[in-house]
Amino acid sequence: MERVYLDNASTTPLLPEVREAMLPYLGEIFGNPSSLHDYGDGAREAMETARSQVAQLIGADADGVIFTGSGTESNNFAIKGLALAQQSKGKHIVISAIEHFSVMHSARTLEKLGFELTLVPVDKYGVVDVDEIGREIRKDTILVSVMHANGEVGTIQPIAEIAKITKERGVVFHTDAVATAGTIPVNVKELGVDVLSLAGNQFYGPKGVGALWVRKGIRILPLLDGGVQEGGRRAGTENVPAIAGLGKAAEIAAANMADRIKRLTPLRDRLLNELPAKIGHVAVTGHPTQRLPGHASFCVEFIEGESMLMLLNMQGVAVSSGSACTSRALKASHVLIAMGLPHELAQGSLLMSLGKDNTDKDIDYVLDVMPPIVERLRQMSPLYDKFVKASKGGK
Amino acid sequence: MERVYLDNASTTPLLPEVREAMLPYLGEIFGNPSSLHDYGDGAREAMETARSQVAQLIGADADGVIFTGSGTESNNFAIKGLALAQQSKGKHIVISAIEHFSVMHSARTLEKLGFELTLVPVDKYGVVDVDEIGREIRKDTILVSVMHANGEVGTIQPIAEIAKITKERGVVFHTDAVATAGTIPVNVKELGVDVLSLAGNQFYGPKGVGALWVRKGIRILPLLDGGVQEGGRRAGTENVPAIAGLGKAAEIAAANMADRIKRLTPLRDRLLNELPAKIGHVAVTGHPTQRLPGHASFCVEFIEGESMLMLLNMQGVAVSSGSACTSRALKASHVLIAMGLPHELAQGSLLMSLGKDNTDKDIDYVLDVMPPIVERLRQMSPLYDKFVKASKGGK
Repeated sequence: MERVYLDNASTTPLLPEVREAMLPYLGEIFGNPSSLHDYGDGAREAMETARSQVAQLIGADADGVIFTGSGTESNNFAIKGLALAQQSKGKHIVISAIEHFSVMHSARTLEKLGFELTLVPVDKYGVVDVDEIGREIRKDTILVSVMHANGEVGTIQPIAEIAKITKERGVVFHTDAVATAGTIPVNVKELGVDVLSLAGNQFYGPKGVGALWVRKGIRILPLLDGGVQEGGRRAGTENVPAIAGLGKAAEIAAANMADRIKRLTPLRDRLLNELPAKIGHVAVTGHPTQRLPGHASFCVEFIEGESMLMLLNMQGVAVSSGSACTSRALKASHVLIAMGLPHELAQGSLLMSLGKDNTDKDIDYVLDVMPPIVERLRQMSPLYDKFVKASKGGK
Repeated sequence: MERVYLDNASTTPLLPEVREAMLPYLGEIFGNPSSLHDYGDGAREAMETARSQVAQLIGADADGVIFTGSGTESNNFAIKGLALAQQSKGKHIVISAIEHFSVMHSARTLEKLGFELTLVPVDKYGVVDVDEIGREIRKDTILVSVMHANGEVGTIQPIAEIAKITKERGVVFHTDAVATAGTIPVNVKELGVDVLSLAGNQFYGPKGVGALWVRKGIRILPLLDGGVQEGGRRAGTENVPAIAGLGKAAEIAAANMADRIKRLTPLRDRLLNELPAKIGHVAVTGHPTQRLPGHASFCVEFIEGESMLMLLNMQGVAVSSGSACTSRALKASHVLIAMGLPHELAQGSLLMSLGKDNTDKDIDYVLDVMPPIVERLRQMSPLYDKFVKASKGGK
């Protein structure tokens, strides 16, 4: 059986070069970077190399890069740490309605601590309403957070435009770049953001490591209190092997990014164009062009996403029905709902996220196995029977 | 030159078997455990195996084990998550004066959010005053946290006795077992605790992973908000390789613990007895017998700890002057201060933490190289000159 992995948005495989970069720190060089003796030296050097590599990937200063344990930790750290550090100025936070749950639920936690939250809507393509952000900023607004791209529908947001507004109004601006850093060009200066989250497992780096970049002068409180690691901003013994791997992955991503984008975009466009052409009642979700290069997402009507996923899996095709973080929660996506899709359609969500190893042959295979699966599921759906067959719709 | 690593309290080397257990998840089995397709299966199985292994190490149910990114994260999660979840009952927290900074500073952060904190004193051996804990518990006390053993002075605390009190008074009891889990027997039932923290890099497991065990029925709020991983209690893509490694390390620790303790205790006792005998004005810190099997800590008078550490390092001996988390902060230890040592003595703190590979030969070497180093440093100390030479003290 063919095996086609189209779930790179959930996690990417580790590059062999990245694994090689990690191995010394799972062996000989085991010291604690905080130790003052020789055993700490190699670990400390590895961390500083990685810090430069990550900084370079995002056009930032190395001093601003703080290593964390995941993209989720970076986002929790950003939202909670920035809000708590700025609260003498006010307690109002503005985020988009389609943020990842690590941002959304962090903001909800702050609400319970007395902060006020405004969700800015998106259009039918999942693009955040920039003007609305300007209108929602008040005197007591201390933080705006809008993701660089949405991992579920792939839409890339007008971050630089938002940054112009937040800068003018003197509000700290965070972007969750977990879906973009290492995948498309991310430059903190060009984006104009103050704080940025990224995660290693999104660009062929290890799980269990992420980073938060914080512009010099921006105040943030630690999420993890304790020792003085990371300049007192993130306590805990550093995950040296994973950090070394993150650095290596960042270096490789920077070098290969243009090629990867060039290769993935036409594969993505084949999916976006040919899948709806081959199967009736399939709509592309997200923006038609302003989207991640390897990201194809759909709404497949009259079926239930989980079942489709299972049947595709039986054919060797690994896809997702949305965010991996919610895939076991079996709820309709808040992203699709915010984009105006009715609740029942948001359940037939399908996400195919391409990776560096996918080929045209993979696309051929998927386009081949998918139509009968969808047909089979629809035959079992009372809705399909009622609305489609009766009106001579379908394919 | 000899190389003697006596800083296992900072971090332990990774066991080759543990590295082997991790490698598949840095290769073939790269999937996201939350994914519903085959790629997620292997990752998920690895996590559940590890969960059982960790549970077995501490005599707990696997369901109660939540994986985290470090001991520090476990402690932050415990203190903040338990306090915030119980706050409808009250806002008073009791901890010991010698807790690790990840507990201490988490509690301080809660103080800023309106919680009240009581620090319970310790005696000169670093043993927490159990009766005092009973006296400090009030109607609005919602959480008691006392570490199982202190990583700086090695003293093992009377956790089961404290648990009797907290149980009687209906207060949630957390113990930071980072220094003990995998090193000495830790059984949540025998200890009687409600919540327990542990960390992989303390017992030959990987960095970047820890666990928090929470007794069924105890309410805790997440520290990391986001996806539904770990039953909704800890969001973020799971660090599968590190978790697999933690499980393997737990399994091996459980199997080898009795042997390791038997081997390390006499080596530790040699250090505790022979070092003060060979060098004048050296006092053992911590309890003479109720202490971790591989843990020897001292107060070396009339010298500055950092300098001693550097000179020992030049002789190939890796030691620490206290907690790795504070080693770069250059402050006198809050633990030694709480034990009643004057500030200037607390600066001459020396910690030798033995590991499974240390031998009598290592102890011989240390006992050999250390006296001239101390002598040399004291010759430069104006204090030594004044107080010791003048009174014909010293060795």
